[in-house]
Amino acid sequence: MTSGEDSIISSYFKPLATDPGAFGLTDDAAVLKADGHDIVINTDAIVEGVHFLATDPADSVARKALRVNLSDLAAKGAVPAGFLLTLALREADPDWLAAFARGLGEDIALYGCPLLGGDTVSTPGPLMISVTAFGRVPAGRMVRRFGAAIGDRVVVSGTIGDAALGLNFLTGGAAKAALGSELSSAAALITRYRFPQPRSTLAQCLRDHASAAMDVSDGLAGDLAKLCAVSGVSAQIEIDAVPLSAPVRVLLERGIVDPEAIVAGGDDYEILCTVPVVAWDAFRRDAQQAGVDVTVIGEIVEGTEPPRFVDARGKAIVLARTSYSHF
Amino acid sequence: MTSGEDSIISSYFKPLATDPGAFGLTDDAAVLKADGHDIVINTDAIVEGVHFLATDPADSVARKALRVNLSDLAAKGAVPAGFLLTLALREADPDWLAAFARGLGEDIALYGCPLLGGDTVSTPGPLMISVTAFGRVPAGRMVRRFGAAIGDRVVVSGTIGDAALGLNFLTGGAAKAALGSELSSAAALITRYRFPQPRSTLAQCLRDHASAAMDVSDGLAGDLAKLCAVSGVSAQIEIDAVPLSAPVRVLLERGIVDPEAIVAGGDDYEILCTVPVVAWDAFRRDAQQAGVDVTVIGEIVEGTEPPRFVDARGKAIVLARTSYSHF
Repeated sequence: MTSGEDSIISSYFKPLATDPGAFGLTDDAAVLKADGHDIVINTDAIVEGVHFLATDPADSVARKALRVNLSDLAAKGAVPAGFLLTLALREADPDWLAAFARGLGEDIALYGCPLLGGDTVSTPGPLMISVTAFGRVPAGRMVRRFGAAIGDRVVVSGTIGDAALGLNFLTGGAAKAALGSELSSAAALITRYRFPQPRSTLAQCLRDHASAAMDVSDGLAGDLAKLCAVSGVSAQIEIDAVPLSAPVRVLLERGIVDPEAIVAGGDDYEILCTVPVVAWDAFRRDAQQAGVDVTVIGEIVEGTEPPRFVDARGKAIVLARTSYSHF
Repeated sequence: MTSGEDSIISSYFKPLATDPGAFGLTDDAAVLKADGHDIVINTDAIVEGVHFLATDPADSVARKALRVNLSDLAAKGAVPAGFLLTLALREADPDWLAAFARGLGEDIALYGCPLLGGDTVSTPGPLMISVTAFGRVPAGRMVRRFGAAIGDRVVVSGTIGDAALGLNFLTGGAAKAALGSELSSAAALITRYRFPQPRSTLAQCLRDHASAAMDVSDGLAGDLAKLCAVSGVSAQIEIDAVPLSAPVRVLLERGIVDPEAIVAGGDDYEILCTVPVVAWDAFRRDAQQAGVDVTVIGEIVEGTEPPRFVDARGKAIVLARTSYSHF
């Protein structure tokens, strides 16, 4: 006699759980073998209607759930070791589950992060996917938010604001009206919203050279404020130095969105880190070899106030909000 | 500028996160230090209206969320090392959160299992609490579901059926009508439903003597079937040997509930294990020293069919269902 959740697990997820520590999903627990590395642990949940849209394809939902966690591991300098998946489902829809498992399987292979176990439960509410991801770092070498020092360069990977404007487009915001006929620009932004690009290749570079790091998930301004608060410092950021993609730059130049929508929007899943001046050349070289663009956007300064964003003339820009908040 | 979830974390959960690996909940990730032990990982989620009732007190919900995971760690022979907490909340109700955090803090101290991190998100749906728990075992020593051998004794800890009948009482089932005026019996059953008792003290005894083990969460009959299937064996269980508390025995003898409600009810969070005959005396002695009652309920036999439950005359009892199913 096989229950519904057992059937879901064996049909869709057992084929993905090939790591020996997963025991083929036939046990109550998984094992990470002792091998002298510290285990870095992160968990992030995504909720339908909050972190993703009911209209998002199932395979993109699976990939987003995993990738937002892989982004954290990368920021901490960790190499993926595996993950647990908790699925809260209203119903067991075979088409949705098959697409979800296919997307997940592709990312498991892409990022070398095996499925180790999980839990599948029913809920009368919205879909929720919670992933707990494990990574390994040499003992004592996790990159912390703590550690930014006065004079360090403030650096981000990739470009900022794309995902927030992709969501703005999908939900019929100003970006939709402005980009309605520019399909390639719209598609680029939507792709960034649906498919975060965890900077896994940057992990060792961060371990070797960064004084502090985190990923940008809730908004650059708010996340930088958290890093600075833990490190006991402040920062000055040149807003014109924040790296933007072509579609975001166009929307900004046309006045469709303001800088706040970009630096407080969230869902970027880029790396935010601080790098001592003496380490910058080595950091930039190693990042280039890892295939990741990195940009200096400002400097760590003394103080306990939130980071200052300034324009080209050095004038402070007041941000009404700095990040996404759930409550 | 502090967001709502940051405020929840710092008010209610930061005081509970005293382990150095939690970094005071100021980082994106936690660390389990390398110390030569394997890390056993388990995750179980509980959903309002499915695994607990909206009327259950917040402190009991917190304790249940943690304890169902500690129960798994105990069954795997692992010593708790810490846990992550994912909370999906409709609203940030200070009274509910304070009671939740108080209950959680008491269990953190009771079981020596520190809070390492987590995620707090908003949901328009029911409350959901997902816990991922970590335990340590000597390298290669996790107790598996796999390993039961023909002739091994089938053993359970404590008593079976209490929690299922506690839920039956709370939801106005037959137990409510029968026990309406027997308040101490009703309270005992409800307590078992709301406060699982993880058998953490039995972990080493299981590592030392059991051939296979799991905890009983979905129902004794169904869970034993899973253990047998993975081990490639079957079992014969004497239904009269299944240990019952006084209130459950009364309800059974009065014909208020049938044996199926007891062996398929679930939420027991007792240990189900198999013990080779030669190890039984040592197992019973160590369990006694651990303060846990253990009872032999049957024997592992050859075969691939689901376990047979028989009455005192050896007649097979047909179970229409063997466990709780979500779908």
